[in-house]
Amino acid sequence: MTAPRNRQVTLASRPGGIPQAEHFALRVTALPEPRDGEILVRNHVLSVDPAMRGWVSAVANYSKPVGIGEVMRSFAAGEVLESRHPGFVPGERVSGLFGWQDYAAVPASAVTRKVLEHDLPLSASLGVLGLNGPTAYWALLDIGQPKPGETVVVSTAAGAVGSIAGQIAKLRGCRTIGIAGGPEKRRQCLEEFGYDAAIDYKAGPIEAALTEAAPDGVDVYFDNTGGPISDAVLRQLAVRARVVICGTASLSTWDPWPQGPRMERHLLVKRARMQGFLIFDYADRTEEAVAQLASWVRAGKLVFREDILDGIEHAPGAIARLYRGENSGKLLIRLVE
Amino acid sequence: MTAPRNRQVTLASRPGGIPQAEHFALRVTALPEPRDGEILVRNHVLSVDPAMRGWVSAVANYSKPVGIGEVMRSFAAGEVLESRHPGFVPGERVSGLFGWQDYAAVPASAVTRKVLEHDLPLSASLGVLGLNGPTAYWALLDIGQPKPGETVVVSTAAGAVGSIAGQIAKLRGCRTIGIAGGPEKRRQCLEEFGYDAAIDYKAGPIEAALTEAAPDGVDVYFDNTGGPISDAVLRQLAVRARVVICGTASLSTWDPWPQGPRMERHLLVKRARMQGFLIFDYADRTEEAVAQLASWVRAGKLVFREDILDGIEHAPGAIARLYRGENSGKLLIRLVE
Repeated sequence: MTAPRNRQVTLASRPGGIPQAEHFALRVTALPEPRDGEILVRNHVLSVDPAMRGWVSAVANYSKPVGIGEVMRSFAAGEVLESRHPGFVPGERVSGLFGWQDYAAVPASAVTRKVLEHDLPLSASLGVLGLNGPTAYWALLDIGQPKPGETVVVSTAAGAVGSIAGQIAKLRGCRTIGIAGGPEKRRQCLEEFGYDAAIDYKAGPIEAALTEAAPDGVDVYFDNTGGPISDAVLRQLAVRARVVICGTASLSTWDPWPQGPRMERHLLVKRARMQGFLIFDYADRTEEAVAQLASWVRAGKLVFREDILDGIEHAPGAIARLYRGENSGKLLIRLVE
Repeated sequence: MTAPRNRQVTLASRPGGIPQAEHFALRVTALPEPRDGEILVRNHVLSVDPAMRGWVSAVANYSKPVGIGEVMRSFAAGEVLESRHPGFVPGERVSGLFGWQDYAAVPASAVTRKVLEHDLPLSASLGVLGLNGPTAYWALLDIGQPKPGETVVVSTAAGAVGSIAGQIAKLRGCRTIGIAGGPEKRRQCLEEFGYDAAIDYKAGPIEAALTEAAPDGVDVYFDNTGGPISDAVLRQLAVRARVVICGTASLSTWDPWPQGPRMERHLLVKRARMQGFLIFDYADRTEEAVAQLASWVRAGKLVFREDILDGIEHAPGAIARLYRGENSGKLLIRLVE
């Protein structure tokens, strides 16, 4: 019997724009040994998130870029195999920044949380109960501050974050409008995620459809894209609108800054607010969001989709796949059945 | 003895950009007669404000555009000559939307407030205690929310609003940096308005001077200009910065929207907030601001400059003068010595 080996996806070169498969390499190493204060985690599921583009970018950002040759930073969920930290015991399920690899020896600070929802699949701890659910929850409720009866527009409305934001807005008594690419995602918005209206931006300019769906203007815009879709939505803001900048998926480069219409005058006239959001600022409120989200999931009030690829060999191309919009639901890499 | 006549400045044609003298006409009519519920006001001082550009613009805006042939909408301060409203008696001093004219017969709703600060010049009721002071006060404190020790940058820093915003920020314990055009305005910023640093944007690119003056980044940007000056400041925002969009003086047209660098990604990374402000939303909090501002003026803690033109014939060209930055302090038209 051979000793288990650790497969790792490392950053091979620094991408200028969207990371592609060729920017990563696969290597096999020995199992890592946890040091004092560390735990050894076996990853069951790896997460693929739009934010990973920022983590490998050298452009000034909110976190230190992943170094060339380093294991790709990633959220993952798995099981504690060995613990040299008093807060963990083998067999516990954990999620955290464990990287794109089979096994990770990490300090407790890398653990996002223990996954205690044993009645729900472990993969949910990376999506609706992981990065995406709390992102949608706090970005919508704390920054967007929707009030019952208001109109909420969500871009990438069928995506891992957008689909949850739309459903929470609906649970809060808002009228919801989803913007998504293609007829299948539009169908998901209407039939699975309960949007009151949905617009396929690939079918042509969205202005007229948006005016029809939001005749009194847009009170909250939950923006995951930036770019021309957002330009169209911003022109239809209601007075005192709130724009949550949660992602900028449509911007293909950040340096130099792309050009677009200037918003200053419009924000002034509408007394509107535009604010950037990062989930890392809400780390100490994770449990509050997860408890509410899990309760909605169990009650059947919040549905989520997963798009699962089997095998670590799918990881290198997965970020580009996400930015092409080819996934249908939260994109995950499964390592252990 | 001839009966007094009413000189009025009316809108003669609709400007595409900044209103120039030729867009207005001067006419002389009979004195208006107040109807039931109205008062007759003799204007002593007329106000000239950047916002007047918006009031004559046909582009979608926050108030109904002034019609062609109508008296130019304007704040003014004067004395009640005759009252057919139970809330006013002759001799009282009032400020309000009385228009660019000698005499106005107006309903009580046109009155902003009775001017009770008899120890201060009536003109102050149009500037530091009028539109500008409360604008600076609420925009800075309610939207900008500066905390002691933070760095506050103000554009049009020597202007009627900017100079007050900078002084209030200083009174609140902030480090203040003013951006103004030309060496004389820079001098005013440093010597009269107490800024810790001042940058002359006409002397060249402001990036290096701003980095030196705000090495830890900009926590609050009180923006009266928009455009390239703001682009430079926005690139140096600190994490969780607040941008108050109070004016857009540098944008020469609004339709079509001018192009500029896209801010979305930057706002996200910095978790920054950008919000439009209009003083009309704070009408019910005017007295609170005026009381504080008057108390600072009396204590010598808040200084203000006025640039007074004598005679209504100066009114038509005054808005363009303001946008050319030729005024030094609050621009006013005096009708009565």
